[in-house]
Amino acid sequence: MVIPDRLIADLDRLLGDRLTSSESIRSAHGRDESFHRPRAPDLVAFANSNDEVQEIVRRCAEHTVPIIPFGTGTSLEGHVVALHGGVSLDVSGMRQILEINVEDLDCRVQAGVTHKQLNTELRQSGLFFPVDPGADASLGGMAATRASGTNAVRYGTMKENLLGLTVVLPDGDLVRTGGRARKSASGLDLTRLLCGSEGTLGVITEVQLKLFGVPEAVSVGVCSFSSLKSAVDAVITTIQMGIPVARIELLDEVQMRAINDYSNLDYPEQPSLFFEFHGSETSVAEQSARVGEIVDMRGATDFVWSTKQEEQNRLWQARHDAYYAAKALKPGAEGWPTDVCVPISRLAECIEKTREDIERAGMMTPIVGHVGDGNFHLLLLVHPDNQQEMDVATGINDRLVRRAIDMGGTCTGEHGIGYGKLKYLEMEHGSAVELMRKIKRAIDPHNIMNPGKLIP
Amino acid sequence: MVIPDRLIADLDRLLGDRLTSSESIRSAHGRDESFHRPRAPDLVAFANSNDEVQEIVRRCAEHTVPIIPFGTGTSLEGHVVALHGGVSLDVSGMRQILEINVEDLDCRVQAGVTHKQLNTELRQSGLFFPVDPGADASLGGMAATRASGTNAVRYGTMKENLLGLTVVLPDGDLVRTGGRARKSASGLDLTRLLCGSEGTLGVITEVQLKLFGVPEAVSVGVCSFSSLKSAVDAVITTIQMGIPVARIELLDEVQMRAINDYSNLDYPEQPSLFFEFHGSETSVAEQSARVGEIVDMRGATDFVWSTKQEEQNRLWQARHDAYYAAKALKPGAEGWPTDVCVPISRLAECIEKTREDIERAGMMTPIVGHVGDGNFHLLLLVHPDNQQEMDVATGINDRLVRRAIDMGGTCTGEHGIGYGKLKYLEMEHGSAVELMRKIKRAIDPHNIMNPGKLIP
Repeated sequence: MVIPDRLIADLDRLLGDRLTSSESIRSAHGRDESFHRPRAPDLVAFANSNDEVQEIVRRCAEHTVPIIPFGTGTSLEGHVVALHGGVSLDVSGMRQILEINVEDLDCRVQAGVTHKQLNTELRQSGLFFPVDPGADASLGGMAATRASGTNAVRYGTMKENLLGLTVVLPDGDLVRTGGRARKSASGLDLTRLLCGSEGTLGVITEVQLKLFGVPEAVSVGVCSFSSLKSAVDAVITTIQMGIPVARIELLDEVQMRAINDYSNLDYPEQPSLFFEFHGSETSVAEQSARVGEIVDMRGATDFVWSTKQEEQNRLWQARHDAYYAAKALKPGAEGWPTDVCVPISRLAECIEKTREDIERAGMMTPIVGHVGDGNFHLLLLVHPDNQQEMDVATGINDRLVRRAIDMGGTCTGEHGIGYGKLKYLEMEHGSAVELMRKIKRAIDPHNIMNPGKLIP
Repeated sequence: MVIPDRLIADLDRLLGDRLTSSESIRSAHGRDESFHRPRAPDLVAFANSNDEVQEIVRRCAEHTVPIIPFGTGTSLEGHVVALHGGVSLDVSGMRQILEINVEDLDCRVQAGVTHKQLNTELRQSGLFFPVDPGADASLGGMAATRASGTNAVRYGTMKENLLGLTVVLPDGDLVRTGGRARKSASGLDLTRLLCGSEGTLGVITEVQLKLFGVPEAVSVGVCSFSSLKSAVDAVITTIQMGIPVARIELLDEVQMRAINDYSNLDYPEQPSLFFEFHGSETSVAEQSARVGEIVDMRGATDFVWSTKQEEQNRLWQARHDAYYAAKALKPGAEGWPTDVCVPISRLAECIEKTREDIERAGMMTPIVGHVGDGNFHLLLLVHPDNQQEMDVATGINDRLVRRAIDMGGTCTGEHGIGYGKLKYLEMEHGSAVELMRKIKRAIDPHNIMNPGKLIP
């Protein structure tokens, strides 16, 4: 689009060399970590403060120029692609930890702080922040996309761990939502409305978060199964028995092979579960023993658990590398990670049918999952220029989503809608989408905030 | 207000004798359990199905006649008072349990089902629903007011335990929000927007809820302290150490005396903590022992814990009777329960200052609290016709709310805004209230849904 000269001049006066139209910077801001077709914004504006964000938004609003909030650009459904051009508003420079309240187990940080940065800062305090998506995403972006990760089964997602937000609205007004009280029945829950709004209602500039005490004891366990179904059945029993596991990750045989190859490990190349237990030493030992019995009943081989730090590191490094390990299975291919979430009683069936579908389609595709929540991922591997491959992948993804929705699940457990899953919103939510549109129009009547995303 | 004849005729055709203008029924629908000045609706419509709710809302919308959704009428801030007249839409007849999915630990029920009814139905399944406000409120009303209770410190409030809602919007359209997946990043979080909206955005007709396995073992403990501060400090340490207590309730010396008198018990008349622990037998024993050490360090006397059912019943019956026991302290008085919630590091100071203020004002007022969340209640006892008493109580409440907000807390942890706390919304949320107004106007442009509540 043509950006008005006056807007450029105004932003330039405000930001100086933090406003750029450099080809390479624009290009890096027009794509995320997925294969989705990128499009560069016309300008990238790097904001360092609430005031600057307000001023940028006000100026863009004057000219009805689109704004795409940008953190680390690690989303997976094209969330930051500048579909209609405009200004990428990059808050990654807003990296201050504003307060850590050790006694209250909460903190407030600027939106550009990443979850790893926060946890590094917290190291001395005995506290940690549990939400851990694969990428080292910014907390603002994680709030905007309702992100989650391996710990959600025990500690919840961003939705549960947000106490409040500071947000610049499409008219440039700044509002603070929520507060530091652990619970409140005061007013509409704007925090939750904005959490997962994917930049379509405003720009998140600060997040207030719950923190947790580092558990006294941690143990990990790993075991493998002869079939996916047995592995998933063990998960279902664990959840139904209310064992408070901190993490239960499923990796199928394809993913296990990828991990062994990528990191030179020697795990059995069979469907496997990775567990982590948090609690007192007694509790961790008890949880491990109980899970040991459950997986045993399902025919698991070699369940071992360990409280050794190096074993924990080895296990979770392997899990965190899953995406890169999978990509290495097919050199030159791009990753198309997709995720769904279903009621846990349907999880085994959903994964099995998906595995069959993948095999019919003949496309090597690892399955990994935060299965304690009923959430799992496919890692489709595609060359975006190969139309035939793209058609096969599109078919697998489409059938996956329909299968999940038919089972009472959702088209995405944690990656979000962006523009990649826009067409499934109505399939999942029916007439509730009209209510979303009403809210969007009320808050952003000129549709300048991340247009073309989240709400079809 | 004058209800148009055509509306009466239409509703009469639809509902027959389930539409009434009977004085006593109207009067019972124009007041909740608090002292707030009642006002009767012009009509009461008893709906038995989604279709009927839709039809009633459509007919009222045609004539711009206010609708006040009504469940059990047990709210505490005047939520159901028909400030502008209109139709009380009573869904208490919608009492079907629509589905219980034992394997998935979830259920869907009609809005009129109460939490006790649900738990009775669940008895055979080994599951329970944890949110337990004092009254046996309807689950629709509990969702609408973001209710909570004694278990929230472990299991969360309605906000955390709602999976989805069925809602009739002000134009009569019916939408289903959320779904059965345990987590989702799909679309705006309408479920959380509606949870706590106090009937101002629509009429909740069905709720989808998370359930939990009945814990394998339960133990309770009780102990008393020489000062409120010591009791609260013991709570703070318990929370900060991450001990997963299911309940921690504080009752001050006034409340303990009330309970002894009311139920002929012999608890020490000192600030006391009631605990409940859930888990495996080992875990419950460990939690009890650790809490025993903590309260010991704070000088508690006679901490005893027990896994006996009769001891549990005795303890929680006493706690649940707190409101009625308090009212019996001042026969003929009405209860004015008010609550706030503050960051836990400020809890001792907030309660102590409040106790001092109460003593200065010379009004006998028990303090009880779900203190694990930083949430506590005053039970003001007033004769609403005694202006001097009302002024004293108003002053105490006003200073309490300001104190809590000054400490980073909220004007209400669980009772909600209704019209009783309307004037504090802007004090707490500042310019975010304007955003709430925008949303309200977008969804309910003619302000027919529970007008005069929640949003000033």
